[in-house]
Amino acid sequence: MTEPALATRTKRVLTGYRPTGALHVGHWAGNVENMLALQADAGYDCYFFVADWHMLTTHYDRTDELPGFVEGLVLDWLAAGLDPERAVIYRQSDIPEVAEMALLLGMITPLGWLERVPSYKDRLRDMSERDVSNFGLLGYPVLQVVDITIVRGELVPVGEDQVAHLELSREIVRRFNRLYGDVLVEPQPLLSETPLIPGSDGRKMSKSLDNTIGVRDGEDAIRATVRSFITDPQKLRKGDPGRPEICPIFALHRKFSPDDVARIEATCRTGELGCVDCKTILADHLVETFAPFRERRAALAASPGVARDVLAAGADKVRPVARETIEIVRDAMHLR
Amino acid sequence: MTEPALATRTKRVLTGYRPTGALHVGHWAGNVENMLALQADAGYDCYFFVADWHMLTTHYDRTDELPGFVEGLVLDWLAAGLDPERAVIYRQSDIPEVAEMALLLGMITPLGWLERVPSYKDRLRDMSERDVSNFGLLGYPVLQVVDITIVRGELVPVGEDQVAHLELSREIVRRFNRLYGDVLVEPQPLLSETPLIPGSDGRKMSKSLDNTIGVRDGEDAIRATVRSFITDPQKLRKGDPGRPEICPIFALHRKFSPDDVARIEATCRTGELGCVDCKTILADHLVETFAPFRERRAALAASPGVARDVLAAGADKVRPVARETIEIVRDAMHLR
Repeated sequence: MTEPALATRTKRVLTGYRPTGALHVGHWAGNVENMLALQADAGYDCYFFVADWHMLTTHYDRTDELPGFVEGLVLDWLAAGLDPERAVIYRQSDIPEVAEMALLLGMITPLGWLERVPSYKDRLRDMSERDVSNFGLLGYPVLQVVDITIVRGELVPVGEDQVAHLELSREIVRRFNRLYGDVLVEPQPLLSETPLIPGSDGRKMSKSLDNTIGVRDGEDAIRATVRSFITDPQKLRKGDPGRPEICPIFALHRKFSPDDVARIEATCRTGELGCVDCKTILADHLVETFAPFRERRAALAASPGVARDVLAAGADKVRPVARETIEIVRDAMHLR
Repeated sequence: MTEPALATRTKRVLTGYRPTGALHVGHWAGNVENMLALQADAGYDCYFFVADWHMLTTHYDRTDELPGFVEGLVLDWLAAGLDPERAVIYRQSDIPEVAEMALLLGMITPLGWLERVPSYKDRLRDMSERDVSNFGLLGYPVLQVVDITIVRGELVPVGEDQVAHLELSREIVRRFNRLYGDVLVEPQPLLSETPLIPGSDGRKMSKSLDNTIGVRDGEDAIRATVRSFITDPQKLRKGDPGRPEICPIFALHRKFSPDDVARIEATCRTGELGCVDCKTILADHLVETFAPFRERRAALAASPGVARDVLAAGADKVRPVARETIEIVRDAMHLR
């Protein structure tokens, strides 16, 4: 077995995030904490990017919101503890080589592969009230494989349900290598456990369902949102026995009240703990968890240009890698 | 009426050519002569480009031939009289801004518009023996509108049958301007008469039909190919009356024997002119027409690097224009 020409010795792990609004508690638990853990692990070389071009696939008609969303996301990341000294933080659209490579890989990606992507069909269905059936949305997976391969990403953190999605990236890489030689690195999934965080209505916390707790929310907003959560519908008053396993508040306790979770589970089941008190405990923990974040974020927001500077420094690190990759890709395709 | 932000004062005319093999007499009459006329007209600012990325839409698995085809096409153009001092001659892939803008315009181009393009369906059908049903082929019209708008092309030479095709470019421009402001120039068709040049079998001269006379062919090859042409099947020998209107040789006389065409038509109809002699007259004219071309081309090919230098100089002229356009496009889409 020979190594692909672009293999590196470090384990480069890559993850991107679409700037479509403020982070919420579901993102924090499912994504930000995972990025923090990766950054803290010396075994990984982390590339974290703001996927603003991906945002266009569904929000092309709302780009006036984009600059604020990009800046907000970077400040959220920094306040959460992502560190530009330990991870490369950059913006997709600052790397024009991504667009060129997407054009090239699109030339060899069968339409059928793209049309069969389940998340593509889901997105068309979920957004049926809006007009998103554009060429760019269909090409999302092409842009995705380029995000990974242009920086020679080897590992992509995914949940169990996204392994199939990464498989399409791997297929496109294999097709490229079959046509033009063994050039691109086939990315591997880095299975990450992402707890399912429910929102106020019990469904998955999601901005589009308007059931979220924002990580930037102040104490009053957090307490009010927590109070609005549904709980076990059979537990009507304190004293009634509850079923923590079906209660969204308890799911959040698992994540944000680790020291209290055994006691809460027990006293909910006996009925001793009422939902009002149970919610107060959760709200206390959430307020406590996010207070340092909010403080750091306010400080960052007070000095203008922080996000811009971080992205500029990130682009300076990524562009030489991307330029080298695109040169090798052009050579392999006889475009030079 | 306000003018689009990128409108220019000169009439910029743009045409591209896919480097898929040697030029033949059909290209010459249909395309090269038209480019020569445009270049000679002081009213036009000509942009002529080698569409190597477009070549990938159907020939992605044959890119080893690409460097030779690109160089060959540029030498053919120069030998034919295209003049880098009077027209900007460049290669599509030297302008990376084209790829970025294609990514952006793809985000707003409805799939349905692309799927309905007749030439897309034709190409899928014509190439059914090969595997070309890729994302890039479907996106051909997106790349095409970018080729035009990135240099703010105002006029695109098209035959009657391609006006509908250009209309799709215009629709994409209008959609962009509706979403992001009046930025891009809507290109207009420059109707050009392109004579239908038949090949040796009477069908349209086309490389894929193997019925061509190559403009690089030597005298012996030209004479042999002309002898192989079908003629009026009812004219079996000299003396039989012929029907010039159905004879491919006569169609070529119209183009290449303008001073003799009346006499040839008359003597063919009477039967006085036999097909062998008629073909000899045509071959003489073709040899005469292309002799200076072949001579100039041999001289150009003898000094290495001519095509490379022309393309480099062209890229130097086009990139500042493309950079300015992409900056304005990014601003309009709030990507900066």
